[in-house]
Amino acid sequence: MVGVDLGGTKILAGIVDTNGTILGKKRVPTPVGADPDQVLDVIIDCATELLRVCRVKEEEIRGIAVATPGPLSFPEGVVRDSPNLGWERVNFKEELIRRTGRPVIVEKDTNMAALGEYYFGRQRGCGDLLYITVSTGIGGGIICAGKLYRGHLGGAGEVGHMVVEAGGAACNCGRRGCLEALASGSAITRRLDEMVKQGQGQGILNCTTAGEQPGPRELGIAARQGDEEARLLLTQVAEYLGIGIANLVNILNPRAVILGGGMMLGLKDLLLAPVQNYVYEHVFNLNREDLIIECTSLDDDIVLYGCVAAVLKLLGQGTCPSVPLGERSRG
Amino acid sequence: MVGVDLGGTKILAGIVDTNGTILGKKRVPTPVGADPDQVLDVIIDCATELLRVCRVKEEEIRGIAVATPGPLSFPEGVVRDSPNLGWERVNFKEELIRRTGRPVIVEKDTNMAALGEYYFGRQRGCGDLLYITVSTGIGGGIICAGKLYRGHLGGAGEVGHMVVEAGGAACNCGRRGCLEALASGSAITRRLDEMVKQGQGQGILNCTTAGEQPGPRELGIAARQGDEEARLLLTQVAEYLGIGIANLVNILNPRAVILGGGMMLGLKDLLLAPVQNYVYEHVFNLNREDLIIECTSLDDDIVLYGCVAAVLKLLGQGTCPSVPLGERSRG
Repeated sequence: MVGVDLGGTKILAGIVDTNGTILGKKRVPTPVGADPDQVLDVIIDCATELLRVCRVKEEEIRGIAVATPGPLSFPEGVVRDSPNLGWERVNFKEELIRRTGRPVIVEKDTNMAALGEYYFGRQRGCGDLLYITVSTGIGGGIICAGKLYRGHLGGAGEVGHMVVEAGGAACNCGRRGCLEALASGSAITRRLDEMVKQGQGQGILNCTTAGEQPGPRELGIAARQGDEEARLLLTQVAEYLGIGIANLVNILNPRAVILGGGMMLGLKDLLLAPVQNYVYEHVFNLNREDLIIECTSLDDDIVLYGCVAAVLKLLGQGTCPSVPLGERSRG
Repeated sequence: MVGVDLGGTKILAGIVDTNGTILGKKRVPTPVGADPDQVLDVIIDCATELLRVCRVKEEEIRGIAVATPGPLSFPEGVVRDSPNLGWERVNFKEELIRRTGRPVIVEKDTNMAALGEYYFGRQRGCGDLLYITVSTGIGGGIICAGKLYRGHLGGAGEVGHMVVEAGGAACNCGRRGCLEALASGSAITRRLDEMVKQGQGQGILNCTTAGEQPGPRELGIAARQGDEEARLLLTQVAEYLGIGIANLVNILNPRAVILGGGMMLGLKDLLLAPVQNYVYEHVFNLNREDLIIECTSLDDDIVLYGCVAAVLKLLGQGTCPSVPLGERSRG
């Protein structure tokens, strides 16, 4: 089957067999300012090339799953007012079915990642699971009692747009103090920019390639070298993430909170432990019991794994490989 | 059947038939500092008295449902570290079964209320429903895809302990800036106390019986008389409630948010419209679509109705009377 992780900046396509083995994958940039037709062209070219390289015949493709940035209406698969793609209302699913003639499932990227973790991750089979991506933005996917929970129209999981500091930093969504405005990659980049303008953050600038803007990566390098400003900023970011995750643990009582996304995985050594500690200390006893907070083991491929899970479900072959709770390690 | 709404200050017991008709109810104070055995005595006395008055025979009682303050573990029915009851770990369900020999279901009060709304409220049959009680404290019950969602161990729904103002007012739970610390009845009482100590709030004091402490009720009276300080404080409370509910709408994408609880119902004329407006203006377009925000029509009896629903479910007779979406009015 073909899985496609369509992002605002990159498209990651993969050919995957029904066991979840990735036979081949290819990453190309998302054409800037492209209309949906052009993006579909790129996806189809990419998949065709991959089929050739992996020596898989087109007729062997049983389904196509595409993960798109939200908001995405479900079950229609209509991309709605997407800030990342710049599309207002595109029926991506219908278009893809028309052009390929194959069964297609379109799902919000964070939902797809939650499915990936639930079917193929270390916490597979964990029915009360919350996936959170911390990257340029922050989003989530919620598994409730063994099922992906999309809410009334597909809009569930927008955990980055939970205000945790009323009146705080402005968010792209128009509100103030959203978790995404305080603890995402773009929040860090903006904060570093402010610091540099005020003549601060020299240690972080020293870790930045000339002419480039410092971001989470450079912040991490500086912090690992012991830079105090970098460490302080990371402590603040970890606390905001901790507040947001503790909120969600009190609201949803998940068994496992799985963290992913470029920024989180890149700064795992610096962020994971303080986030875990904050959450364990700040939730109700009952909600803390058994609670696992960890980074996904599926790395960047988590969305592709979700695509496999989604196609298997679409074809009625989705059985979640459950593992005994005892085999799950905490933290 | 017998339904019991066990609160920190009052016990409301009712005899209800399987159609949800309340045949009789009785309200008694919760004995202060009582141990579980004493509380069970009060509940059983209360129910016995009601059976007599309603001329229902003991053998006609097919089940007993008790709603307790959280946290409550599920399915065990163990009250855990309850600040309202002052109990650390009490297997209330087991005790009640032992003493009555009847089928018993014990459920967190906010969950029971969500069931009440889902089975008997104006929004009955609405599968993606969030119930929020705004009273001395703030709590919630979540219906996901037609089922009560309790999370991994029964701890889901603690929406009052979502931090919306990092570093804000201290909360009973030990955190700072929880919704409950900013917008509940106890938050208002505390704020009014501070105001009075600073020589403010004279208009609100004028509406307060001599020797008593002003609270949400007095705040409402003063606001209705046009008192500026009262109106300003209510505006702030409505905004905090709006922030919290908008967060939950972004996270869960419910079809309906149903508000209840003594404070909310008592201040409905002053709070509902500003809360609705705030939420409609501050959530994603997709999450706003079809969204209903209203006060429950079941008033103080919502938990009793939930008890009926819970017993019907326990007896395998729970069918949710669904209504066509078109018949639901917005707001």
